[in-house]
Amino acid sequence: MKIGVLLHGNGVYDGTEIHEAVLTLLALAEVGADVICFAPDVPQHHVINHLTGEEMPETRNVLVESARIARGNIRNLASLTADELDALVMPGGFGTAKNITKWAFEGPQGAILEPVKQLILDLVALKRPIVALCMSPTTLAKALEGSSVSAHLTVGTDAEDSPYEISGIAAGIHSLGQQAEMRSVREIAIDRENRIISAPCYMMEATILDIRNNIKSAIDALVAMLEED
Amino acid sequence: MKIGVLLHGNGVYDGTEIHEAVLTLLALAEVGADVICFAPDVPQHHVINHLTGEEMPETRNVLVESARIARGNIRNLASLTADELDALVMPGGFGTAKNITKWAFEGPQGAILEPVKQLILDLVALKRPIVALCMSPTTLAKALEGSSVSAHLTVGTDAEDSPYEISGIAAGIHSLGQQAEMRSVREIAIDRENRIISAPCYMMEATILDIRNNIKSAIDALVAMLEED
Repeated sequence: MKIGVLLHGNGVYDGTEIHEAVLTLLALAEVGADVICFAPDVPQHHVINHLTGEEMPETRNVLVESARIARGNIRNLASLTADELDALVMPGGFGTAKNITKWAFEGPQGAILEPVKQLILDLVALKRPIVALCMSPTTLAKALEGSSVSAHLTVGTDAEDSPYEISGIAAGIHSLGQQAEMRSVREIAIDRENRIISAPCYMMEATILDIRNNIKSAIDALVAMLEED
Repeated sequence: MKIGVLLHGNGVYDGTEIHEAVLTLLALAEVGADVICFAPDVPQHHVINHLTGEEMPETRNVLVESARIARGNIRNLASLTADELDALVMPGGFGTAKNITKWAFEGPQGAILEPVKQLILDLVALKRPIVALCMSPTTLAKALEGSSVSAHLTVGTDAEDSPYEISGIAAGIHSLGQQAEMRSVREIAIDRENRIISAPCYMMEATILDIRNNIKSAIDALVAMLEED
Protein backbone atom coordinates (compact mmCIF):
# COMPACT_ATOMS: atom_id res chain seq x y z
CA MET A 1 0.00 0.00 0.00
CA LYS A 2 1.38 3.37 -1.05
CA ILE A 3 -0.54 6.06 0.79
CA GLY A 4 -0.11 9.79 0.15
CA VAL A 5 -0.43 12.21 3.07
CA LEU A 6 -1.20 15.81 2.05
CA LEU A 7 0.38 18.34 4.44
CA HIS A 8 -0.21 22.11 4.32
CA GLY A 9 2.05 23.66 6.92
CA ASN A 10 2.96 22.82 10.50
CA GLY A 11 0.59 24.04 13.21
CA VAL A 12 -3.18 24.01 13.70
CA TYR A 13 -3.86 27.73 13.19
CA ASP A 14 -1.99 28.28 9.91
CA GLY A 15 -1.07 24.80 8.70
CA THR A 16 -1.50 21.08 9.34
CA GLU A 17 -2.81 20.06 12.76
CA ILE A 18 0.31 18.39 14.18
CA HIS A 19 -1.33 15.72 16.34
CA GLU A 20 -3.56 14.65 13.45
CA ALA A 21 -0.60 14.48 11.07
CA VAL A 22 1.61 12.43 13.41
CA LEU A 23 -1.22 10.10 14.46
CA THR A 24 -2.02 9.58 10.77
CA LEU A 25 1.61 8.57 10.15
CA LEU A 26 1.43 6.25 13.17
CA ALA A 27 -1.83 4.60 12.10
CA LEU A 28 -0.51 4.12 8.57
CA ALA A 29 2.71 2.56 9.89
CA GLU A 30 0.66 0.22 12.08
CA VAL A 31 -1.11 -1.21 9.03
CA GLY A 32 2.18 -1.58 7.14
CA ALA A 33 1.60 1.20 4.60
CA ASP A 34 4.36 2.96 2.68
CA VAL A 35 3.77 6.67 3.20
CA ILE A 36 4.50 9.50 0.78
CA CYS A 37 4.20 12.85 2.54
CA PHE A 38 3.77 15.73 0.13
CA ALA A 39 2.82 19.42 0.16
CA PRO A 40 2.44 22.28 -2.29
CA ASP A 41 5.44 24.61 -2.77
CA VAL A 42 3.50 27.84 -2.10
CA PRO A 43 3.64 30.60 0.52
CA GLN A 44 1.47 30.16 3.61
CA HIS A 45 -1.54 32.45 3.66
CA HIS A 46 -0.11 33.94 6.85
CA VAL A 47 1.78 32.99 10.01
CA ILE A 48 -0.10 32.78 13.32
CA ASN A 49 1.60 33.03 16.72
CA HIS A 50 0.19 29.87 18.36
CA LEU A 51 0.74 31.34 21.83
CA THR A 52 -1.34 34.50 21.30
CA GLY A 53 -3.44 33.73 18.21
CA GLU A 54 -2.14 36.89 16.54
CA GLU A 55 -0.76 37.20 13.03
CA MET A 56 3.03 37.56 12.80
CA PRO A 57 4.85 39.80 10.28
CA GLU A 58 6.56 36.82 8.61
CA THR A 59 6.28 34.71 5.49
CA ARG A 60 6.74 30.93 5.50
CA ASN A 61 6.56 28.31 2.77
CA VAL A 62 4.03 25.47 3.03
CA LEU A 63 6.38 22.75 1.70
CA VAL A 64 9.30 23.88 3.87
CA GLU A 65 7.21 24.02 7.06
CA SER A 66 5.47 20.72 6.28
CA ALA A 67 8.93 19.12 5.99
CA ARG A 68 9.26 19.56 9.76
CA ILE A 69 6.45 17.06 10.38
CA ALA A 70 7.93 14.65 7.82
CA ARG A 71 11.51 14.94 9.16
CA GLY A 72 12.58 16.13 5.68
CA ASN A 73 11.11 13.06 3.96
CA ILE A 74 8.57 14.91 1.81
CA ARG A 75 7.77 15.47 -1.85
CA ASN A 76 6.69 18.55 -3.73
CA LEU A 77 3.05 18.10 -4.79
CA ALA A 78 4.09 19.20 -8.29
CA SER A 79 6.19 16.01 -8.66
CA LEU A 80 3.38 13.63 -7.67
CA THR A 81 0.82 11.89 -9.88
CA ALA A 82 -2.34 10.04 -8.79
CA ASP A 83 -1.18 6.70 -10.21
CA GLU A 84 1.63 6.61 -7.62
CA LEU A 85 -0.92 6.38 -4.80
CA ASP A 86 -3.21 3.57 -3.68
CA ALA A 87 -5.01 6.08 -1.47
CA LEU A 88 -4.77 9.59 -0.06
CA VAL A 89 -5.09 10.82 3.53
CA MET A 90 -5.76 14.51 4.22
CA PRO A 91 -5.09 15.58 7.84
CA GLY A 92 -6.79 18.73 9.12
CA GLY A 93 -5.75 22.03 10.61
CA PHE A 94 -6.57 25.51 9.29
CA GLY A 95 -3.91 25.07 6.61
CA THR A 96 -6.35 23.10 4.50
CA ALA A 97 -8.76 26.08 4.56
CA LYS A 98 -6.09 28.81 4.35
CA ASN A 99 -3.29 27.43 2.18
CA ILE A 100 -5.16 24.95 -0.08
CA THR A 101 -8.56 26.62 -0.23
CA LYS A 102 -9.55 30.03 1.15
CA TRP A 103 -12.59 28.62 2.98
CA ALA A 104 -11.45 30.15 6.29
CA PHE A 105 -11.77 33.63 4.77
CA GLU A 106 -14.22 33.34 1.86
CA GLY A 107 -16.24 30.21 2.64
CA PRO A 108 -17.03 27.69 -0.11
CA GLN A 109 -16.59 30.32 -2.84
CA GLY A 110 -12.86 30.71 -2.13
CA ALA A 111 -10.52 29.24 -4.73
CA ILE A 112 -8.72 25.89 -4.38
CA LEU A 113 -5.11 25.30 -5.41
CA GLU A 114 -5.47 23.83 -8.89
CA PRO A 115 -2.88 21.00 -8.51
CA VAL A 116 -4.64 19.74 -5.36
CA LYS A 117 -8.01 19.80 -7.13
CA GLN A 118 -6.54 17.93 -10.09
CA LEU A 119 -4.90 15.26 -7.90
CA ILE A 120 -8.18 14.66 -6.06
CA LEU A 121 -10.17 14.43 -9.32
CA ASP A 122 -7.57 12.03 -10.75
CA LEU A 123 -7.74 9.84 -7.64
CA VAL A 124 -11.55 9.79 -7.76
CA ALA A 125 -11.43 8.87 -11.46
CA LEU A 126 -9.04 6.01 -10.61
CA LYS A 127 -11.38 4.89 -7.75
CA ARG A 128 -8.54 5.34 -5.25
CA PRO A 129 -9.92 5.89 -1.72
CA ILE A 130 -9.55 9.22 0.07
CA VAL A 131 -9.59 9.80 3.83
CA ALA A 132 -10.38 13.38 4.86
CA LEU A 133 -9.89 14.35 8.51
CA CYS A 134 -11.14 17.33 10.55
CA MET A 135 -11.67 20.40 8.27
CA SER A 136 -10.25 18.77 5.12
CA PRO A 137 -13.63 17.45 3.86
CA THR A 138 -14.27 21.09 2.90
CA THR A 139 -11.24 20.93 0.59
CA LEU A 140 -12.53 17.65 -0.84
CA ALA A 141 -15.97 19.21 -1.39
CA LYS A 142 -14.37 22.18 -3.13
CA ALA A 143 -12.34 19.87 -5.39
CA LEU A 144 -15.51 17.92 -6.31
CA GLU A 145 -17.56 21.07 -7.02
CA GLY A 146 -19.09 20.81 -10.48
CA SER A 147 -18.09 17.14 -10.92
CA SER A 148 -20.57 14.26 -11.23
CA VAL A 149 -19.66 13.12 -7.71
CA SER A 150 -21.85 13.99 -4.71
CA ALA A 151 -19.94 12.56 -1.77
CA HIS A 152 -21.12 12.02 1.80
CA LEU A 153 -18.73 13.85 4.14
CA THR A 154 -18.57 14.77 7.82
CA VAL A 155 -16.91 17.67 9.60
CA GLY A 156 -18.49 16.85 12.98
CA THR A 157 -21.83 17.44 14.63
CA ASP A 158 -23.65 20.26 16.40
CA ALA A 159 -25.06 17.71 18.84
CA GLU A 160 -21.83 17.70 20.89
CA ASP A 161 -19.30 20.38 21.91
CA SER A 162 -17.32 21.91 19.07
CA PRO A 163 -15.28 25.13 18.83
CA TYR A 164 -16.90 25.65 15.40
CA GLU A 165 -20.38 26.07 13.99
CA ILE A 166 -20.62 22.70 12.26
CA SER A 167 -24.01 23.31 10.62
CA GLY A 168 -22.64 26.40 8.88
CA ILE A 169 -19.74 24.42 7.42
CA ALA A 170 -22.16 21.62 6.48
CA ALA A 171 -24.27 24.17 4.60
CA GLY A 172 -21.16 25.22 2.70
CA ILE A 173 -20.49 21.60 1.76
CA HIS A 174 -24.09 21.30 0.52
CA SER A 175 -23.67 24.46 -1.55
CA LEU A 176 -20.89 22.68 -3.47
CA GLY A 177 -23.18 19.78 -4.40
CA GLN A 178 -21.92 17.43 -1.67
CA GLN A 179 -23.73 15.80 1.28
CA ALA A 180 -22.83 16.63 4.90
CA GLU A 181 -23.25 13.97 7.59
CA MET A 182 -23.27 14.66 11.32
CA ARG A 183 -20.74 12.58 13.26
CA SER A 184 -19.22 12.77 16.75
CA VAL A 185 -15.47 12.39 17.33
CA ARG A 186 -16.17 8.75 18.21
CA GLU A 187 -17.57 8.11 14.72
CA ILE A 188 -16.48 8.25 11.09
CA ALA A 189 -18.46 8.64 7.86
CA ILE A 190 -17.96 6.08 5.09
CA ASP A 191 -19.12 6.77 1.54
CA ARG A 192 -18.68 3.36 -0.09
CA GLU A 193 -19.87 4.41 -3.52
CA ASN A 194 -17.35 7.24 -3.80
CA ARG A 195 -14.72 5.51 -1.67
CA ILE A 196 -14.38 8.44 0.71
CA ILE A 197 -13.92 8.20 4.48
CA SER A 198 -14.11 11.23 6.76
CA ALA A 199 -13.64 11.79 10.50
CA PRO A 200 -14.22 14.92 12.63
CA CYS A 201 -11.06 14.83 14.81
CA TYR A 202 -10.33 18.28 16.29
CA MET A 203 -13.42 19.85 14.64
CA MET A 204 -14.95 18.63 17.89
CA GLU A 205 -13.83 19.32 21.47
CA ALA A 206 -11.54 16.34 21.85
CA THR A 207 -8.51 14.94 23.63
CA ILE A 208 -5.45 13.53 21.89
CA LEU A 209 -6.82 10.07 22.78
CA ASP A 210 -10.04 10.85 20.90
CA ILE A 211 -7.97 11.94 17.91
CA ARG A 212 -5.85 8.78 18.07
CA ASN A 213 -8.96 6.58 18.09
CA ASN A 214 -10.83 8.59 15.45
CA ILE A 215 -7.88 8.42 13.03
CA LYS A 216 -7.24 4.73 13.75
CA SER A 217 -10.88 3.99 12.92
CA ALA A 218 -10.58 5.92 9.66
CA ILE A 219 -7.36 4.16 8.64
CA ASP A 220 -8.79 0.75 9.58
CA ALA A 221 -11.81 1.54 7.38
CA LEU A 222 -9.43 2.53 4.59
CA VAL A 223 -7.57 -0.79 4.84
CA ALA A 224 -10.88 -2.69 4.78
CA MET A 225 -11.89 -0.74 1.66
CA LEU A 226 -8.59 -1.51 -0.07
CA GLU A 227 -8.84 -5.19 0.90
CA GLU A 228 -12.31 -5.49 -0.68
CA ASP A 229 -10.76 -4.73 -4.08
CA MET B 1 -0.43 12.64 37.93
CA LYS B 2 0.76 16.04 36.76
CA ILE B 3 3.50 15.53 34.21
CA GLY B 4 5.57 18.34 32.70
CA VAL B 5 6.70 18.06 29.07
CA LEU B 6 9.68 20.26 28.19
CA LEU B 7 9.52 21.49 24.58
CA HIS B 8 12.28 23.44 22.81
CA GLY B 9 10.96 24.37 19.38
CA ASN B 10 9.03 22.55 16.68
CA GLY B 11 11.06 20.41 14.28
CA VAL B 12 13.85 17.86 14.64
CA TYR B 13 16.73 19.94 13.26
CA ASP B 14 16.29 23.12 15.30
CA GLY B 15 13.68 22.23 17.93
CA THR B 16 11.65 19.42 19.45
CA GLU B 17 11.34 16.20 17.41
CA ILE B 18 7.66 16.37 16.50
CA HIS B 19 6.87 12.63 16.43
CA GLU B 20 8.51 12.17 19.84
CA ALA B 21 6.61 15.11 21.31
CA VAL B 22 3.19 14.00 20.00
CA LEU B 23 3.75 10.35 20.92
CA THR B 24 4.78 11.49 24.41
CA LEU B 25 1.50 13.41 24.72
CA LEU B 26 -0.39 10.33 23.47
CA ALA B 27 1.34 7.92 25.87
CA LEU B 28 0.74 10.30 28.79
CA ALA B 29 -2.95 10.61 27.88
CA GLU B 30 -3.21 6.83 27.71
CA VAL B 31 -2.12 6.52 31.34
CA GLY B 32 -4.48 9.28 32.44
CA ALA B 33 -1.85 11.92 33.21
CA ASP B 34 -2.52 15.65 33.31
CA VAL B 35 0.08 17.22 31.04
CA ILE B 36 1.71 20.63 31.41
CA CYS B 37 3.64 21.52 28.26
CA PHE B 38 6.20 24.25 28.82
CA ALA B 39 9.15 25.85 27.07
CA PRO B 40 11.67 28.63 27.65
CA ASP B 41 10.86 32.08 26.24
CA VAL B 42 14.19 32.48 24.38
CA PRO B 43 15.23 32.84 20.73
CA GLN B 44 16.00 29.64 18.85
CA HIS B 45 19.72 29.17 18.20
CA HIS B 46 18.87 29.23 14.49
CA VAL B 47 16.21 28.17 11.99
CA ILE B 48 16.87 25.16 9.74
CA ASN B 49 15.03 24.55 6.46
CA HIS B 50 13.88 20.95 7.04
CA LEU B 51 13.66 20.35 3.28
CA THR B 52 17.27 21.25 2.49
CA GLY B 53 19.04 21.15 5.87
CA GLU B 54 20.30 24.69 5.33
CA GLU B 55 20.13 27.55 7.79
CA MET B 56 17.47 30.18 7.04
CA PRO B 57 17.93 33.95 7.60
CA GLU B 58 15.14 34.09 10.20
CA THR B 59 14.70 34.30 13.94
CA ARG B 60 12.04 32.33 15.82
CA ASN B 61 11.14 32.07 19.50
CA VAL B 62 11.32 28.71 21.28
CA LEU B 63 8.12 29.19 23.33
CA VAL B 64 6.13 30.50 20.36
CA GLU B 65 7.18 27.65 18.06
CA SER B 66 6.67 25.03 20.79
CA ALA B 67 3.10 26.33 21.16
CA ARG B 68 2.36 24.81 17.74
CA ILE B 69 2.88 21.29 19.12
CA ALA B 70 0.79 22.09 22.21
CA ARG B 71 -2.06 23.74 20.23
CA GLY B 72 -1.46 26.91 22.26
CA ASN B 73 -1.84 25.10 25.59
CA ILE B 74 1.66 25.78 26.91
CA ARG B 75 3.35 27.56 29.81
CA ASN B 76 6.41 29.73 29.97
CA LEU B 77 9.17 27.81 31.79
CA ALA B 78 9.72 30.93 33.92
CA SER B 79 6.25 30.50 35.47
CA LEU B 80 6.77 26.85 36.46
CA THR B 81 8.12 25.42 39.71
CA ALA B 82 9.20 21.84 40.41
CA ASP B 83 6.57 21.28 43.10
CA GLU B 84 3.84 21.58 40.45
CA LEU B 85 5.10 18.41 38.74
CA ASP B 86 4.94 14.76 39.76
CA ALA B 87 7.40 14.00 36.97
CA LEU B 88 9.07 15.52 33.90
CA VAL B 89 9.35 14.16 30.34
CA MET B 90 11.96 15.59 27.98
CA PRO B 91 11.36 14.74 24.29
CA GLY B 92 14.34 14.91 21.91
CA GLY B 93 15.24 16.73 18.74
CA PHE B 94 18.23 19.01 18.18
CA GLY B 95 16.44 21.77 20.10
CA THR B 96 17.57 20.22 23.37
CA ALA B 97 21.21 20.51 22.23
CA LYS B 98 20.86 23.87 20.45
CA ASN B 99 18.30 25.88 22.41
CA ILE B 100 18.67 24.44 25.94
CA THR B 101 22.33 23.47 25.88
CA LYS B 102 24.89 24.19 23.14
CA TRP B 103 26.01 20.52 22.98
CA ALA B 104 25.40 20.40 19.21
CA PHE B 105 28.07 23.06 18.69
CA GLU B 106 30.35 22.94 21.74
CA GLY B 107 29.83 19.43 23.15
CA PRO B 108 29.48 18.90 26.91
CA GLN B 109 31.27 22.18 27.70
CA GLY B 110 28.50 24.29 26.15
CA ALA B 111 26.32 26.20 28.62
CA ILE B 112 22.84 25.11 29.72
CA LEU B 113 19.92 27.49 30.19
CA GLU B 114 19.99 28.22 33.90
CA PRO B 115 16.20 27.89 34.54
CA VAL B 116 16.17 24.41 32.95
CA LYS B 117 19.16 23.35 35.07
CA GLN B 118 17.47 24.68 38.20
CA LEU B 119 14.15 22.92 37.45
CA ILE B 120 15.95 19.61 36.90
CA LEU B 121 17.99 19.97 40.12
CA ASP B 122 14.82 20.89 42.04
CA LEU B 123 12.99 17.83 40.65
CA VAL B 124 15.92 15.55 41.54
CA ALA B 125 16.00 17.01 45.07
CA LEU B 126 12.26 16.30 45.38
CA LYS B 127 12.81 12.73 44.06
CA ARG B 128 10.41 13.39 41.18
CA PRO B 129 11.11 11.04 38.25
CA ILE B 130 12.49 12.33 34.95
CA VAL B 131 12.12 10.66 31.53
CA ALA B 132 14.71 11.79 28.97
CA LEU B 133 14.19 10.76 25.33
CA CYS B 134 16.55 10.71 22.35
CA MET B 135 19.28 13.41 22.73
CA SER B 136 17.82 14.96 25.90
CA PRO B 137 19.86 12.78 28.31
CA THR B 138 22.76 15.06 27.32
CA THR B 139 20.79 18.00 28.72
CA LEU B 140 20.07 16.03 31.87
CA ALA B 141 23.78 15.16 32.20
CA LYS B 142 24.70 18.82 31.77
CA ALA B 143 22.18 19.84 34.44
CA LEU B 144 23.61 17.25 36.85
CA GLU B 145 27.24 18.26 36.23
CA GLY B 146 28.96 18.98 39.53
CA SER B 147 26.04 17.64 41.60
CA SER B 148 26.25 14.58 43.85
CA VAL B 149 24.16 12.59 41.35
CA SER B 150 25.80 10.22 38.87
CA ALA B 151 22.88 8.97 36.78
CA HIS B 152 22.73 6.06 34.35
CA LEU B 153 21.54 7.39 30.99
CA THR B 154 21.26 6.10 27.42
CA VAL B 155 21.38 7.90 24.10
CA GLY B 156 21.43 4.69 22.04
CA THR B 157 24.02 2.14 21.02
CA ASP B 158 26.79 1.79 18.45
CA ALA B 159 25.82 -1.88 18.03
CA GLU B 160 22.93 -0.99 15.70
CA ASP B 161 22.42 1.61 12.96
CA SER B 162 22.38 5.21 14.11
CA PRO B 163 22.82 8.49 12.22
CA TYR B 164 25.07 9.63 15.10
CA GLU B 165 28.28 8.50 16.76
CA ILE B 166 26.75 7.25 19.99
CA SER B 167 30.05 6.42 21.70
CA GLY B 168 31.22 10.01 21.26
CA ILE B 169 28.09 11.35 22.93
CA ALA B 170 28.43 8.70 25.65
CA ALA B 171 31.99 9.93 26.30
CA GLY B 172 30.59 13.46 26.69
CA ILE B 173 28.07 12.19 29.25
CA HIS B 174 30.92 10.48 31.15
CA SER B 175 32.91 13.72 31.12
CA LEU B 176 30.07 15.34 33.10
CA GLY B 177 30.26 12.70 35.83
CA GLN B 178 27.32 10.63 34.57
CA GLN B 179 27.16 7.01 33.33
CA ALA B 180 26.25 6.15 29.71
CA GLU B 181 24.43 2.90 28.97
CA MET B 182 24.10 1.33 25.52
CA ARG B 183 20.49 0.61 24.50
CA SER B 184 18.76 -0.18 21.22
CA VAL B 185 15.54 1.57 20.17
CA ARG B 186 13.67 -1.49 21.51
CA GLU B 187 15.07 -0.88 25.00
CA ILE B 188 15.02 1.75 27.71
CA ALA B 189 17.43 2.47 30.58
CA ILE B 190 16.05 2.69 34.12
CA ASP B 191 18.06 4.28 36.92
CA ARG B 192 15.98 3.36 39.98
CA GLU B 193 18.22 5.07 42.50
CA ASN B 194 18.06 8.43 40.76
CA ARG B 195 14.55 7.89 39.38
CA ILE B 196 15.61 8.58 35.79
CA ILE B 197 14.35 6.74 32.70
CA SER B 198 15.89 7.24 29.26
CA ALA B 199 15.12 5.89 25.79
CA PRO B 200 17.05 6.30 22.50
CA CYS B 201 14.12 7.02 20.11
CA TYR B 202 15.36 8.74 16.92
CA MET B 203 19.01 8.68 18.08
CA MET B 204 18.81 5.29 16.34
CA GLU B 205 17.63 4.51 12.80
CA ALA B 206 13.99 3.93 13.59
CA THR B 207 10.45 4.00 12.26
CA ILE B 208 7.61 5.92 13.83
CA LEU B 209 6.37 2.56 15.17
CA ASP B 210 9.70 2.06 16.96
CA ILE B 211 9.35 5.54 18.45
CA ARG B 212 5.79 4.85 19.55
CA ASN B 213 6.84 1.63 21.30
CA ASN B 214 10.02 3.09 22.81
CA ILE B 215 8.13 6.05 24.31
CA LYS B 216 5.24 3.86 25.51
CA SER B 217 7.78 1.64 27.32
CA ALA B 218 9.36 4.68 28.94
CA ILE B 219 6.01 6.12 30.08
CA ASP B 220 4.85 2.73 31.37
CA ALA B 221 8.10 2.52 33.37
CA LEU B 222 7.42 6.02 34.71
CA VAL B 223 3.94 5.04 35.86
CA ALA B 224 5.33 1.94 37.56
CA MET B 225 7.94 4.11 39.33
CA LEU B 226 5.27 6.56 40.51
CA GLU B 227 3.01 3.73 41.69
CA GLU B 228 5.83 2.27 43.84
CA ASP B 229 5.75 5.44 45.96
